[in-house]
Amino acid sequence: MPSLDDRYAQLVTALRAQADLTDVIQLLEWDQETVMPAGAIDRRARQIGALAALLHEGQTAPRFLALVDQLSADLPRLAPEQAVDVRETKWRVDRQRRLAPGLVRERSTLHAQARAVWVHARRHNDFATLAPWLKQVVEIERRVAAAIDSSRSAYDVLLEEYEPGTTAAALEQLFGVLRQGLAPLVGRLNARLAAGPLHTDALRGEFSIEAQRRFNRAVAERLGFDFNKGRLDEAEHPFTTCVGDDVRITTRYASNDMRYALYSTVHETGHALYEQGLDSEAWGTPRASACSFGIHESQSRLWENRVARSQAFWQQILPLAYDLFPSLRKQSLHGIVAAANEARPSLIRTEADEITYNLHIVLRFELERALLDGSLEVAALPQVWREKMREYLGIEPSTDRDGVLQDVHWAGGSIGYFPSYALGNLYAAQLVEAAEAEIGSIDALVAAGEFGVLLNWLRTHVHRWGQTFRPADLVRHATGRPPTPAPLLDYLEARLAFLESI
Amino acid sequence: MPSLDDRYAQLVTALRAQADLTDVIQLLEWDQETVMPAGAIDRRARQIGALAALLHEGQTAPRFLALVDQLSADLPRLAPEQAVDVRETKWRVDRQRRLAPGLVRERSTLHAQARAVWVHARRHNDFATLAPWLKQVVEIERRVAAAIDSSRSAYDVLLEEYEPGTTAAALEQLFGVLRQGLAPLVGRLNARLAAGPLHTDALRGEFSIEAQRRFNRAVAERLGFDFNKGRLDEAEHPFTTCVGDDVRITTRYASNDMRYALYSTVHETGHALYEQGLDSEAWGTPRASACSFGIHESQSRLWENRVARSQAFWQQILPLAYDLFPSLRKQSLHGIVAAANEARPSLIRTEADEITYNLHIVLRFELERALLDGSLEVAALPQVWREKMREYLGIEPSTDRDGVLQDVHWAGGSIGYFPSYALGNLYAAQLVEAAEAEIGSIDALVAAGEFGVLLNWLRTHVHRWGQTFRPADLVRHATGRPPTPAPLLDYLEARLAFLESI
Repeated sequence: MPSLDDRYAQLVTALRAQADLTDVIQLLEWDQETVMPAGAIDRRARQIGALAALLHEGQTAPRFLALVDQLSADLPRLAPEQAVDVRETKWRVDRQRRLAPGLVRERSTLHAQARAVWVHARRHNDFATLAPWLKQVVEIERRVAAAIDSSRSAYDVLLEEYEPGTTAAALEQLFGVLRQGLAPLVGRLNARLAAGPLHTDALRGEFSIEAQRRFNRAVAERLGFDFNKGRLDEAEHPFTTCVGDDVRITTRYASNDMRYALYSTVHETGHALYEQGLDSEAWGTPRASACSFGIHESQSRLWENRVARSQAFWQQILPLAYDLFPSLRKQSLHGIVAAANEARPSLIRTEADEITYNLHIVLRFELERALLDGSLEVAALPQVWREKMREYLGIEPSTDRDGVLQDVHWAGGSIGYFPSYALGNLYAAQLVEAAEAEIGSIDALVAAGEFGVLLNWLRTHVHRWGQTFRPADLVRHATGRPPTPAPLLDYLEARLAFLESI
Repeated sequence: MPSLDDRYAQLVTALRAQADLTDVIQLLEWDQETVMPAGAIDRRARQIGALAALLHEGQTAPRFLALVDQLSADLPRLAPEQAVDVRETKWRVDRQRRLAPGLVRERSTLHAQARAVWVHARRHNDFATLAPWLKQVVEIERRVAAAIDSSRSAYDVLLEEYEPGTTAAALEQLFGVLRQGLAPLVGRLNARLAAGPLHTDALRGEFSIEAQRRFNRAVAERLGFDFNKGRLDEAEHPFTTCVGDDVRITTRYASNDMRYALYSTVHETGHALYEQGLDSEAWGTPRASACSFGIHESQSRLWENRVARSQAFWQQILPLAYDLFPSLRKQSLHGIVAAANEARPSLIRTEADEITYNLHIVLRFELERALLDGSLEVAALPQVWREKMREYLGIEPSTDRDGVLQDVHWAGGSIGYFPSYALGNLYAAQLVEAAEAEIGSIDALVAAGEFGVLLNWLRTHVHRWGQTFRPADLVRHATGRPPTPAPLLDYLEARLAFLESI
């Protein structure tokens, strides 16, 4: 038998061959979302399908599985970095191998169909058409979870796909504290709103798309995005993808509101900085892969909210903005910052302000968990949605389109994904607190244009670890304590105080 | 054994699986040439290499080869369309299988290396550095040709890769006639030039890139390019590629000369119209693949020269051009057409006018053939190049950079490729003559904006046949006679007469 090091090297070779195929699939999808002509969709679906089949073949090849199993048996004898790669590969492979190929196919077909039904249902505000599909999705996700591990609750098993090591019970406790802490903040926000709107029109108006393109590119570059290994393009639903070490972000321009593109760009830049900060020497291995969806979201939300909505950021960026958008000179800094922080309880999660955002997530967590454990029927979703919106945010949607139909996640089979968003906010606040203890006030750094100091801190304490730690351990390693909601609540309280001062 | 129809269906399935991989490679290359950030090159090379290896695996799989051989033995019993696919697949497969994997690897590595040396040699006008590499390329191409068929001359074997069914002897005869016919035309051109330059500056000046982008897109669309299944982008060296049925053309803009982008765009549009005109029902099979490089070039040259350099074209397109480039209104139609047909003996093939272009090809044909049969040493190339330039065009390059180093083809291993360009011109003239006998004057159609009538004729007589006929037979089928230089010489004589009248 080859030596342990040789077998580990074989593993890396195999993982990199799989990574090459994943990269190509990412390019096919990026191209489809950004530049592909509409008429090319059928052949594109074939191309992606062909590559996905080849990738699956590699990931389930008996030789590969045997290699992973052998290395896994030798885990104690491996060097620490090698052990990370083997441990995480084994964990992923063990989940995959428990799923019968028929179930995998059935599941992905159902997700694709249900997603298409969702597009139609949302457009026509027609929950009744989606309901039977959602029911099927819930059922197949239960089967998938049972196949992976029938000894645990289905929700816990699915949740791990996005946030390894987290449980519904832990989330319930965390989100309970969050709900309790947020309720008075929302009360204060509403009280403040009763006295008048909490925003200005300073960032509305006419902003040429071409000038916005230059502005967004310059902002991404200043924050540290490496255009030598990345691109900024346009897509209907902004996203970040990695074609190997070529990290591509997208945004969407509205000519009458510069916030839309800017905050999409900065959000995706946050994701991209994480990807560009992974250990390039170890590419293709878990050590060089993002830790979790929650940690990923912590990076995007941190740059979007903590950095780019701050007064310090606008102070720093205003000269550039003035050059490209001369009409901005008429606005006060205060007005601009207020516009960047527009806040009010609202119906749509993706447009929610920082104060209310996490309550949208708590609501979804409670509903998806209940769906999966059978305590909530799909048919009852719209009604329960409205009740919870009223309870948490004091408003309720008049249509399902603005309620339960707004997100694609459940129809697309992503049950257990939503908590990542709130965890991202929570991690971000905790990371910033720890960073400030070391490098001083983020606001001061941002005002001085020293974005690199923050980026370096994140690289050192978050990015470069990849999957060396599971998310909660990474947060503990970076901040000295396990994930906790206090920093987020403190931060949001400070944010609200700022808004109240406007 | 499965029925003949079932086995044919298996062949189509296998060819389409190979086509999917080819399509993905095309996308990877398109992306690299148009949008990929520079720092992504290493991983991109890996991605392409991985896909190329998978494709090669499929093309040389024993099961696939056995299927092709079996079907080939049953050729007489196949339906005519099926027989085309089996015949052409067998032909290609037989060439490939005679090459030992080691030779294939050695060859592609050498080509890549020599291409890189060429880039350096051309930049520094340093033929001596390239010479030993060229020698190696010539040697390996001889070995490849001998492996495929040692009973024929190496040049004939290589030539078939680009123009199946053609031989060096046939080309020699054809090009002899061409040379004889072109000599007096070049003499007349020089006489005319002695009286004053044969062009105007009507298409030089300042043309905004953004306006040119809109202009070129509109021109491609008018000629019949289907943007629902295609794109127009920018690349340093314009090219056309097919990502499945998604045909992508590229061009390059010069802000001080609108001809550069326009004639690149129309040239590539000609290639694209061919690809978009292939039988989409039969995709992935030889019947739905371009006939040859020469036929492909006939389509690009036809649209570029016969259509878009004509006075009729400019009459038709001027209103659009005026809208986008108001300064053009100061130019006369005559002056614009003269600018579009600038002619004079010149050193660089890719910039040559129609009258002199084919002599550049005759020269290259004579040299590459002599290199391969050993009657010309690589070391003697620069000198012989200068002598032939003086003989055919009356000028000679003062540097190798403007002489033997100008084209990448030989360094890249494409020996036998150059004749396709002249054959393309020859086929184009003959096709136009036949088309005009059926649909009337092309000029009249173009002046009326009826590009679709010409396109339909080409679709019916050329595009939809794919590889049903070999190139000479396709020309015979479309025009009633074998390829012959008379229509090209007649056309060029008329073109010259027009130039003389300016």
